[in-house]
Amino acid sequence: MKMRCFYILVLLLLSLQMRAQENLPFGERREIVSPEIHANNTVTFRLMAPNANNVTVTGDFLTQGKQNMTKDADGVWSCTTDPLPSELYTYSFVVDGLAMNDPNNVYYRRDVASTLNIFLIGNGQADLYKVNDVPHGTVTKRWYASPGNKMNRRITIYTPPGYENSSSSYPVLYLLHGMGGDEEAWMTLGRASQILDNLIATGKAEPMIMVMPNGNVAQEAAPGESSQGFYKPQFQLPHTMDGTYEKTFREIIDFVDAGYRTIPDKTGRAIAGLSMGGFHTLHISRYYPDTFDYMGLFSAAIMPNEKVQSPVYQNIEATLSGQKNNGYKLYWIAIGKDDFLYQANVDYRSKLDSIHFEYVYRESEGGHTWRNWRIYLTEFLPMLFK
Amino acid sequence: MKMRCFYILVLLLLSLQMRAQENLPFGERREIVSPEIHANNTVTFRLMAPNANNVTVTGDFLTQGKQNMTKDADGVWSCTTDPLPSELYTYSFVVDGLAMNDPNNVYYRRDVASTLNIFLIGNGQADLYKVNDVPHGTVTKRWYASPGNKMNRRITIYTPPGYENSSSSYPVLYLLHGMGGDEEAWMTLGRASQILDNLIATGKAEPMIMVMPNGNVAQEAAPGESSQGFYKPQFQLPHTMDGTYEKTFREIIDFVDAGYRTIPDKTGRAIAGLSMGGFHTLHISRYYPDTFDYMGLFSAAIMPNEKVQSPVYQNIEATLSGQKNNGYKLYWIAIGKDDFLYQANVDYRSKLDSIHFEYVYRESEGGHTWRNWRIYLTEFLPMLFK
Repeated sequence: MKMRCFYILVLLLLSLQMRAQENLPFGERREIVSPEIHANNTVTFRLMAPNANNVTVTGDFLTQGKQNMTKDADGVWSCTTDPLPSELYTYSFVVDGLAMNDPNNVYYRRDVASTLNIFLIGNGQADLYKVNDVPHGTVTKRWYASPGNKMNRRITIYTPPGYENSSSSYPVLYLLHGMGGDEEAWMTLGRASQILDNLIATGKAEPMIMVMPNGNVAQEAAPGESSQGFYKPQFQLPHTMDGTYEKTFREIIDFVDAGYRTIPDKTGRAIAGLSMGGFHTLHISRYYPDTFDYMGLFSAAIMPNEKVQSPVYQNIEATLSGQKNNGYKLYWIAIGKDDFLYQANVDYRSKLDSIHFEYVYRESEGGHTWRNWRIYLTEFLPMLFK
Repeated sequence: MKMRCFYILVLLLLSLQMRAQENLPFGERREIVSPEIHANNTVTFRLMAPNANNVTVTGDFLTQGKQNMTKDADGVWSCTTDPLPSELYTYSFVVDGLAMNDPNNVYYRRDVASTLNIFLIGNGQADLYKVNDVPHGTVTKRWYASPGNKMNRRITIYTPPGYENSSSSYPVLYLLHGMGGDEEAWMTLGRASQILDNLIATGKAEPMIMVMPNGNVAQEAAPGESSQGFYKPQFQLPHTMDGTYEKTFREIIDFVDAGYRTIPDKTGRAIAGLSMGGFHTLHISRYYPDTFDYMGLFSAAIMPNEKVQSPVYQNIEATLSGQKNNGYKLYWIAIGKDDFLYQANVDYRSKLDSIHFEYVYRESEGGHTWRNWRIYLTEFLPMLFK
């Protein structure tokens, strides 16, 4: 069989498959592009839905509500947005009251149990979230032994461009997710490898190893990646904030120091996290004195539930004083004005002030969002290991 | 702020987010589980769509057509399948003529430009596709320099459990995708790392490195993973079968032999691929004489387009004879009875017979499907490096 024939047959098979999905008579299929990003940063969404009576688009590119779409003679609904600021956005369609994803967009991000389409508007902040034509680090999914949790656990590790062809040692950032997240979250929702690739390429960040563990000690790995199989992800898991993760975090540090060319002391270690991961950052950096020179609390939860009894959460003020006396380079606290944890962070800063514990405070617009956590990461990374 | 309050507030935020997606009055939300796999291997699908007039489910678990769903008093449509054979399946809903994904299932696989939900029925062949409680290999996404294609290119590399804590050398399988695929395809659609983890754990396959390159020389990386950004993937790309990939394949072998503890001779190398990847396997293994001891052609395309002029495709019979005379351990040809490339493979086997080129032939049910390619991989791996 000659290749031209092969092409034709495979294209035919593919057409039949697409036809099945779009439920149109063969030959009447029209190629739909959605979303289409225009040069002026407007976006056109399209959906072929000839039988629908009402179609709208909703997403975080709108300050509120939905944008109406209109139907053309082919049954294709469309609308075009206003020019949008540079950002990574999520959206979905609502067809006669039913939310659905865009069948013409293969780019998705899962956040806990929701999977939404994404698109990116460049020419600004979100250029840092793109895969650009720069040297790329290596991203590895591995499993480490966690005797403290009686399981093997999955972990994501980024090594910077050139790591494999060098004999140098590199500093390490431990980057922690929030509740409902896992070892995938900073990569998929946070664009962490793209951000670090781009900041290293422009000389704004030092080449470093970035370690993204799973902070839910009840699970081995992200949903679908463990022997629990394909289950519906849940926001809250057992033992997420009871001290177990902090107590067993040393296993992760030891695994990384044993398996990678690290700078295995506090000058070569940073730790940061969002929300629950900010909570973990606060308590891990106290609990392991003299282990980290750089701390980043992004929209951090602060204090444990009163009922939790763990040695990790005892003598908080004394251990903070110990951390202060040991010395460190940076303690960075970032939060949005509208974050529901804003007041908790005000109170925490008062506590730190009362013991003369130095920190750098960054207050942003907005609330408890990945948009802010990506921005915080782009600001935090350039301050490390200089 | 105390943690109980934190939980309540975050759960409230999450509820609001889910409410926005499901468009129901607050308080009327009902938790939907879909798909639900029952112990007898039947599956219940559910979709909340109170305004819909007709909802069906379609997918490769049905031999043909669609299965009707019925609506309950809450507006939740559901249906339950017959008991299903063990397999990894794809499906979607059709709501009043419009195909959509299941909003309650976060597990998807992209095949070219289509993204479909998946589910897995165990207790049989598909147990090999599960993440089981066995030691797991490491999966790495890296970039290698391809001077022959004037770009850096992304590649997926699996190293077996224990690789990092050993000083042994390992054999390498080069595993190639088909047209429309990329360096992600064998991992996402083919469940290659799960299959190899499971076969190594039971002693059926030797520990080996598995290298999954991108066979489309016009692209650096899978859609969304290169500086081309988020574009709609296309089935056919320029220069996929014109000899360029074969000519530059040595770059991949050299990269792997330089960066990993391999057995860098033919006794330690296998190559296999599906469809276009079977074509690449056929021609690469001829073009690099004495480089591979194991070849696997899965539903392979065979001969190039007559118009293609490349030294790679000259003297095919002579180079096959050379390959025969150099010796090899296994030349495995697998194809389904209904495959559109069936006759091309009959013709190719006749050609091989005419020059007394030994091969093992495996004919299966079915056609040009990932179901078959996963089965072929489970059968091919145990024959390697024994």
